[in-house]
Amino acid sequence: MEKYSDEHFERLGITNKHKLSAASKRALEWDKWSSEWYGEFEVFDLKGDLAYEEGVVRRDPSGIIRHQGKYYVWYSKSVGPTDGFAGDIEKDKVFPWDRCDIWYATSEDGWTWKEEGMAVGRGEKGQYDDRSVFTTEIFVHEGRYYLVYQTVKSPYTVRVKNQVGIAWATSPDGPWTKSPEPILSPADNGIWLGEEDNRFKVVRKGDFDSHKVHDPCIMYYRGKFYLYYKGEQMGEEITFGGRQIRHGVAIADHPLGPYLKSEYNPVSNSGHEICVWHYDGGIASLITTDGPEKNTIQWAPDGINFEIMSYIKCPPPAIGLNRSLDTEREPLAALEWGLTHEYMNDDYQYIRRMHGRRVSHHVAKGESAS
Amino acid sequence: MEKYSDEHFERLGITNKHKLSAASKRALEWDKWSSEWYGEFEVFDLKGDLAYEEGVVRRDPSGIIRHQGKYYVWYSKSVGPTDGFAGDIEKDKVFPWDRCDIWYATSEDGWTWKEEGMAVGRGEKGQYDDRSVFTTEIFVHEGRYYLVYQTVKSPYTVRVKNQVGIAWATSPDGPWTKSPEPILSPADNGIWLGEEDNRFKVVRKGDFDSHKVHDPCIMYYRGKFYLYYKGEQMGEEITFGGRQIRHGVAIADHPLGPYLKSEYNPVSNSGHEICVWHYDGGIASLITTDGPEKNTIQWAPDGINFEIMSYIKCPPPAIGLNRSLDTEREPLAALEWGLTHEYMNDDYQYIRRMHGRRVSHHVAKGESAS
Repeated sequence: MEKYSDEHFERLGITNKHKLSAASKRALEWDKWSSEWYGEFEVFDLKGDLAYEEGVVRRDPSGIIRHQGKYYVWYSKSVGPTDGFAGDIEKDKVFPWDRCDIWYATSEDGWTWKEEGMAVGRGEKGQYDDRSVFTTEIFVHEGRYYLVYQTVKSPYTVRVKNQVGIAWATSPDGPWTKSPEPILSPADNGIWLGEEDNRFKVVRKGDFDSHKVHDPCIMYYRGKFYLYYKGEQMGEEITFGGRQIRHGVAIADHPLGPYLKSEYNPVSNSGHEICVWHYDGGIASLITTDGPEKNTIQWAPDGINFEIMSYIKCPPPAIGLNRSLDTEREPLAALEWGLTHEYMNDDYQYIRRMHGRRVSHHVAKGESAS
Repeated sequence: MEKYSDEHFERLGITNKHKLSAASKRALEWDKWSSEWYGEFEVFDLKGDLAYEEGVVRRDPSGIIRHQGKYYVWYSKSVGPTDGFAGDIEKDKVFPWDRCDIWYATSEDGWTWKEEGMAVGRGEKGQYDDRSVFTTEIFVHEGRYYLVYQTVKSPYTVRVKNQVGIAWATSPDGPWTKSPEPILSPADNGIWLGEEDNRFKVVRKGDFDSHKVHDPCIMYYRGKFYLYYKGEQMGEEITFGGRQIRHGVAIADHPLGPYLKSEYNPVSNSGHEICVWHYDGGIASLITTDGPEKNTIQWAPDGINFEIMSYIKCPPPAIGLNRSLDTEREPLAALEWGLTHEYMNDDYQYIRRMHGRRVSHHVAKGESAS
């Protein structure tokens, strides 16, 4: 152990450098120290039209943009309870995010919101987005506004493969023009086993995104359009890290595509909703909920190769980042405040406000910080 | 990449084995797969005397034992709000766990509890336990009952070093005889800097347990008495994993000691409250809250060298395990149901019931599991 100083052993709390427990040996291998990426969160209720409303689902808030003195957010909206898959899928609501349209709201202070109306609605019967449009992100580029979102074509079975749609406008208030075709679809190299509507029964799993492409989010990066998304795999397993959920990226020369999936996919081995921001010439990513690297903040200098920068406590889910913040100020500046959602129960979710900040000291009430 | 089969790449969701992202390379190094240690939790309110009571603190439930048809639990109890450290420490209540005694309750069904009375109270003025006795665990051995717990001697300053006391009885209803001396104390190799009541200002940090020895828990293992505990270090830092908190163990030939700290301490590099159980000839440990390995379940074949067995979502804190369960049945059998606490607010906490179980499938409402 000559390569470690006595000071390093002491900082790690190790009592005898010649008698190292397995945990101490792992600690000696840590290649980082600073808390600059270590953040904690608080969540608060909103006022106005986005406060919890029984009977209504408002969930998966987009990023927040600022336009003419107001904040704008988009989200999935639906009504009524969730029936699940055991009934008549043609008539029922199978998920809270089934039967959704994308609505939007504005606010002057980020606390009291006014629901403005529907931005993007479901398509006509028979179209690729006729069943639900949901889980949207906003992207602004060269004076144009883009909403990218998940689509489902009826029937919304367990095995259905969703797609990603896009709509554009010259104002955040719309009107929105939908792309006639989706811009991203699941991989087609998985093979279902049998006819049962069961996503675990496969002959072949296929890629990490052979079943679903979720949580689309466009970032303008290195002169191109990086569409980050969450994949779900046919025959998904639960392992020592929980659900197998990974992120991918597809890249285009124009916001409307065509998008080419990166050969390096998946770019994460864990995670859930996409929450990415620009920092220091690279892309930072909040990895939550599923997989062995759950609840870490990661960063890729090239937007592809993400390394773990911190291990955090449970963050709020489905964060819509405040895109009006200067995210380059420090690693976690992007998290200062944004939106999230919360489950009141299995039927109804509502949007809340989250505050995130770097934590560099833990102090009790009335205790000095440093 | 010849050492990995195509099937392995597919199970990891990797789309091109010749173009591996950093995250995929990390995934390829995982040396485990099975979900047998992967658990999720639910928490429920209790009824009777342990339901939330404004103005009263009941927290840090001990393990649960079964005796003559009833469950028994011990816990820290105090009253009144927390003042913190900014006032008159001699008069104030500096933490919710300040000014505590150890009380106990019984239940026939584990849901409705009857508060029976005080088990172990604070000592006379001037004794090592005169300020607070709290955060206790129960240990039963050869017909004797032992309560091991944290003690503080007034004044309860930020810099105070607590100790661990023990009491014994021939019945879980008492009466309890306290040890005249503590059985465990913080290491004395740290040096404070200056006179300010500040735990971050040190000339020298000392060992991982140079400031506090918390959450004592005795396990009978390999014919000896293993006292697991949480250490806090003088000059604690916040790093990329949050607070530096580690576990240690001290070993004795008799439950009352003397306890000798293991040379291999610390036995964890992360964690918070001690939650350990017997499994497969070794000791399993739930690591929560703090450090890079937070929210993992670990296991040591020898009670010293803990390895990570799973990465879990946020578990309930301060779990008191149900010691009447057969923990050898499967890795997570010990977690089937037990107790935890919850913060109603910064002043008042209350005990609740938790259920933990292995999760091997994630299914939506009405969806088939396998």
